[in-house]
Amino acid sequence: MKSAKIPSVSITRLSLYARSLELLDEKGVEVVSSVRLADICGINPAQIRKDLAYFGQFGVRGVGYYVKELLFEIRKILGLDREWRLGLVGVGNLGCALLRHAQFESHGYTFVAAFDKKPKRIGMKIGDVEVAPLQAMNRLVKEKGIEIGVIAVMPAWAQKAADMLVRAGVCGILNFAPTQLRCPANVFVENVDFSLRLNVLRYRITSQRSRRQRTRSKPPQRLA
Amino acid sequence: MKSAKIPSVSITRLSLYARSLELLDEKGVEVVSSVRLADICGINPAQIRKDLAYFGQFGVRGVGYYVKELLFEIRKILGLDREWRLGLVGVGNLGCALLRHAQFESHGYTFVAAFDKKPKRIGMKIGDVEVAPLQAMNRLVKEKGIEIGVIAVMPAWAQKAADMLVRAGVCGILNFAPTQLRCPANVFVENVDFSLRLNVLRYRITSQRSRRQRTRSKPPQRLA
Repeated sequence: MKSAKIPSVSITRLSLYARSLELLDEKGVEVVSSVRLADICGINPAQIRKDLAYFGQFGVRGVGYYVKELLFEIRKILGLDREWRLGLVGVGNLGCALLRHAQFESHGYTFVAAFDKKPKRIGMKIGDVEVAPLQAMNRLVKEKGIEIGVIAVMPAWAQKAADMLVRAGVCGILNFAPTQLRCPANVFVENVDFSLRLNVLRYRITSQRSRRQRTRSKPPQRLA
Repeated sequence: MKSAKIPSVSITRLSLYARSLELLDEKGVEVVSSVRLADICGINPAQIRKDLAYFGQFGVRGVGYYVKELLFEIRKILGLDREWRLGLVGVGNLGCALLRHAQFESHGYTFVAAFDKKPKRIGMKIGDVEVAPLQAMNRLVKEKGIEIGVIAVMPAWAQKAADMLVRAGVCGILNFAPTQLRCPANVFVENVDFSLRLNVLRYRITSQRSRRQRTRSKPPQRLA
């Protein structure tokens, strides 16, 4: 496995393949062609073959992929075969919604701690988690085996939250603040930044409109 | 502008450049080299030059970029120079948090409507927005000039929400449900899927650990 070179987009797509394979498995489908799998995922078949090739040899030429087998392999590759423990920093509106969000639990993630700097929030219970002060982070990360920190604080405060999580010993950070975090190379950071996604939408819509306007304002062409 | 071919990652990075340029502008910096800008954004300088080249000629060789000028151009390219109106579908925990989230407003987005199918939620006021029934979507999208729909419903219901938004006439969808939506080609979809980002983290951590274990279990090498 050439793991160091594998791009994030391929790993992201691997999750999409797993999700589609789960649905197929639930329906009792045993074998799926790369064309069919690609169609379900909204990706082209060559891309699926290329992504999977990073991790080994899968599928049988002329037959396709055995659904259960490929799902098992992808789950192993992604580490989806065990529970992961999360700690949240920042229990505002977004933080609370994340603690209550069913999507984490159903994907094998459990929030086991939440931290906030506001005294009035300390001791609040959200779902199964009691909000702790920042000073308790070092201790709780170790005691509860937290591997991934989730940052949902104001942008100006995100780097500080990241520094504290790194010092406490997390291996990865999921960052919801629109801030470019600086972390040591052995701590992985993934950003969930809705405003970036919205900006992509805004750009696509704007450029589609200007293309249409250009087409409309062209003088009608005569046949030669 | 070769707009049709520009990859989403380049557009996403353009937003990052804008964000860094805003900070530089606030600090009174007038000119920035691509090396310095790259360092702030955590991206390599060649990438910045490549991304910008999609949109035109920027910067002066041996000098760098004029901060205000480049910021103005990027804002125009991304359509950041005007307000965009959003409509939310699904006013659960996450939906409520999004309506109250300061990040949208500060980036030029305003929620002007919210829809839910649960009768008990209809009429609730969250921030400045009153929750409306789904039946009001067609009318409100037109009346309020909603261009982008934001989906924060359960996965099983996301495609239905998307179909309704498309029928009502939105141009783009920001989808928070972990579902691959199918929409007509003229409606753009961007996904905000935290579980995919978490899976990337999980993979990076897992493969770092197995690399370390492999290194540790290697027999010590003797000098020849």
